[in-house]
Formats: sequence, structure tokens, C-alpha cells
Amino acid sequence: MKLVTYDIAGRRGIGALKNDAVIDLTAAGLPASMRELIAGGAALLQSAARIEKPVLPLKGLHLLAPVPDPQKVVAIGLNYMDHCREQNVAVPTKPLVFAKFPSSIIGPEAPIYYDPALTNQVDWEAELGVIIGKRARNVKRAEALSYVFGYTPLNDVSARDLQFGDKQWVRGKSLDTFCPFGPAITTADEIPDPQKLHIYSRVNGMTMQDSSTSEMIFPVDELVAFLSNAFTLEPGDVIATGTPNGVGVFRTPKVFLQNGDRVEIEIENLGVLLNPVVTTA
Amino acid sequence: MKLVTYDIAGRRGIGALKNDAVIDLTAAGLPASMRELIAGGAALLQSAARIEKPVLPLKGLHLLAPVPDPQKVVAIGLNYMDHCREQNVAVPTKPLVFAKFPSSIIGPEAPIYYDPALTNQVDWEAELGVIIGKRARNVKRAEALSYVFGYTPLNDVSARDLQFGDKQWVRGKSLDTFCPFGPAITTADEIPDPQKLHIYSRVNGMTMQDSSTSEMIFPVDELVAFLSNAFTLEPGDVIATGTPNGVGVFRTPKVFLQNGDRVEIEIENLGVLLNPVVTTA
Repeated sequence: MKLVTYDIAGRRGIGALKNDAVIDLTAAGLPASMRELIAGGAALLQSAARIEKPVLPLKGLHLLAPVPDPQKVVAIGLNYMDHCREQNVAVPTKPLVFAKFPSSIIGPEAPIYYDPALTNQVDWEAELGVIIGKRARNVKRAEALSYVFGYTPLNDVSARDLQFGDKQWVRGKSLDTFCPFGPAITTADEIPDPQKLHIYSRVNGMTMQDSSTSEMIFPVDELVAFLSNAFTLEPGDVIATGTPNGVGVFRTPKVFLQNGDRVEIEIENLGVLLNPVVTTA
Repeated sequence: MKLVTYDIAGRRGIGALKNDAVIDLTAAGLPASMRELIAGGAALLQSAARIEKPVLPLKGLHLLAPVPDPQKVVAIGLNYMDHCREQNVAVPTKPLVFAKFPSSIIGPEAPIYYDPALTNQVDWEAELGVIIGKRARNVKRAEALSYVFGYTPLNDVSARDLQFGDKQWVRGKSLDTFCPFGPAITTADEIPDPQKLHIYSRVNGMTMQDSSTSEMIFPVDELVAFLSNAFTLEPGDVIATGTPNGVGVFRTPKVFLQNGDRVEIEIENLGVLLNPVVTTA
């Protein structure tokens, strides 16, 4: 299933994408919150799969990030071999963990805003987003994928001047609107191997990143195990699993997002996440 | 008012501390969640102040962190002059922002757990915790304190080996149980000047930190303004405002928390936060 969170005039609900329509799961009696659906486990997901109506047209429907309010967004740096090569840094010996604050989350089509007085180096990062399905603590790698609810395209938008100036990355990674993901969560049953997915970013239609999740240094199962050894992962938590080569700051010449740009993240079988870029006064 | 969150056999509620008792605000009809009380604004807080019963005895009441589930915990590094001196680093020219994941939050008396296989350098950090009262975005410094709901003692527990080994601090700062705060939020009306508070930590009764919030490089109003320029602060969000000198890692010889230790954070007029330290197998 491909699951979305919609907003109709301030009323939130969840739905299942079917071609050009959305089956309104909330109107059919399911929770209005994706976190509640996820916490409901396999039984609730199975009942969701049996629902066929009512149906909303996809066109014109306002989609939010599929989980608009996770407890946390855990992000991983330097997790693709080709991204380490492009910046000439050593391959990490363990996952490099950083944070994005949930206040930075937006959904598909929503603008990525930036204030030129605060940053002039806004960059994209195509990432496989992993949505946690059940509480995970000290999980072994062999069982780790059973804790994954699904996957989604995610753009780890980064203000490079703040990120590298601060040394600690969280501020430059957490400006409001700097964590777009969606449009949908594709449930894990449809993605038997998360390490075999093409991943792309495009700016104004021009391909900037073109790689595969097979380039990940620490694959999803190892990340879930490693993270859960340090802290509890909660249902609905998001893991941004790192980006491949082709980001703007390491290009020659450097390229940064500008007012009016349109940035897309596409992952094979997961869909396309599109966000326009808008400067604020 | 001094506001607490309690848990009675799995039922959460909020209360107001009065000497050795807690006025049960939830039983009197107020929300069960501190975030909801905070979001209710001044009117709800005033109605809370008029409630006199029912009363619960404080003794034996299980208190959680006063906000057990904030959207985010924003932490500030190197924010006391004396803490910069003890580690011989330059005084920052702007606040150094990092994150603690909300999954690390615990309340008073709850154990700080650590796994010796993961870290052997668990340290304390006495901090003034600031609880945000209303949504703050691009707030000016002159108005910033009006966005503060209250204050609380907070222990920014830190696994120094992970913190300094990772370079990004969030993992070493976010192990489960590494963000104790409480026991209560003292509302801002009772703290006219948050920069004139004595702040202490003690381990097994021995004073380890003894300083004043007047030593802060960036005071609370400047922090709120600075942070809100980057991202939206939500009601209930917690700011950990940095620690004074006297942490374990910069002592000679170094001191780290051990199984059986009892660590206290005390801030003038805000109370004492006590947590035992327990190693896991």
C-alpha cells in the first residue's frame, strides 16, 4: 500500500493511494493520524487494505508529509560511498548520526522557504526515508527490517553555510520547511530489498543525483540495529538514511537552490517528491 | 505556580505543587497533558491558579518529566563563561545549537541507565531548562521572554566517549534516560530574572557545579530570539541552556557517573532534580 496524510480544510486524515485516487481510510473508520495507524500494527494495516471506499480524487487533494508529527527524525551523514568520494573524506567506520527537528517537516508540493539574510547556500539531498513501525530497542540486525513500516522519498535540505559554520549540523538541517518527505509511505511488504532502489534528485528537471541505495555504507537493517542500541525508536519515527553524490556544495562550480527552483526527489517504486523553492523577505 | 505531570497507575495528569501536596488539576477538569495546558494560554493558566482541590499527597506520587512529550529539545553548548574556561576553548560568537531526542526524557527519581558496553564516560550537566509557552517564530529579543512558559532544572546527561568520538553530539546526548528534567515547571511570573539564579550539581551529596545563570554568554531572551530565527518553537518545547564549569570530563582526574551514584541538579527557586544512576547488563 501507498499511504498518505491529507488535509481537507483543516481536517486531517489518512488514505491509500490507488492510481489517481485516494481511498479515505479515516472516513471509513480508521484513525486520522498515521502514527496511530502505524501503532495499530499489522491487524490495523490489514483492515486498511480491505477498505475500498469512500474515494477522494487525488487531483487537488492537499497532502501533508505522510507522518507530519513523528517523535523524531534521525538522520545519517556520509552513508554513500560515492558521496564520501565526492568530498574526499574517509568512509565512516560507524553510522554518523545527526538530528532534524520535526518542526522542519513539510509535505509534497509545499514550498521550501529560505531567508537570504540567514543562508545563501541551500542544498538538496535525495534520501531514502525509513518509517519505523514498532518500538525498537536493542534490535538485532537480522530482525531489524521487521521494525520498518515503510519507505518514502525524503529531501534532507541543508543550509551549508550554517551546517559547516556551526560544526553541529542540526540548525542548518532544521530550518522550517527543510525536511520535505512523501508524497506517500510505501509499506515494507512492497519493498523486499531496500538496498536495490534507484535514487535521483532533479532541479528544474536537470538530474543532479543518480545513484542506488546499493551504494549505502550502512544499509537500513544495520542502521535500525545501531540506532536502537542507543535510543528507542518509536512508531512513526523517521530515519533519513543519507544521500549519494551530486549535492550542490560539492559540484564545480557549486550550485545552490534559488527562488523559483523546483526540486524533485525520486526513488524507484516510492514515487516523486516535488517542492518549489521560495525566498522570504 | 509549580506544575507537575503525574502518573497514577498509567493515568497521566497535571497538578500544581503546594508544599507537600499536589492539587490535581486534571481531576478538577483541566487537560491531562502539560502541552495542552500550555497551549491553552494565560486564560487556562489563570483558571488553574484558582483550583484548590482535589489534593494528592506528594509523597509516593510518581512524577514524570513535567512535559514528557515535547516536540523537541533544543540544547545549547558552551554557553557559560566558566565552562569555556575550564576546557580552554574560545567563547562562541553565536549560540552553539545541538539536539537531544525526546526519547531520552525522564522525570525526577527515575534512573539514568547506561550500558558499560556502549559508554564508560557518563557525565552530568546542570542546566536551566526553559519551557516555551507559545509558538515563536522570528521573535525579537525584547519580546522573547513573553514566549517563555516557565523554567525547570535539567540534567543534560552526556556520554563523553560517544559525544566526542562521533563529533556530532546528538547520539551521546540522547541515550535513553539521558534527559532528566523536573520535578516541576516554575511558571515565568515567579522568575522575574532568569539570569540571576544559582545553579548547582551534586553527586552523592558532593557539590560538583556551583555557579549562576548570570554566567551565561547568551541569556534566555537572546537564545529564544536566535533559535526562533531558524525554526519555529512550539508550546512545550524545551531549551537546555548550557552548563557551567565543574562537569566530570574536565576535572583532574576525570570523574564519571557510576552504578549507584545519585546525581542532583538544583536551581534557586526551581527545586531539586534527583536521579539515581544504574548500569544495565
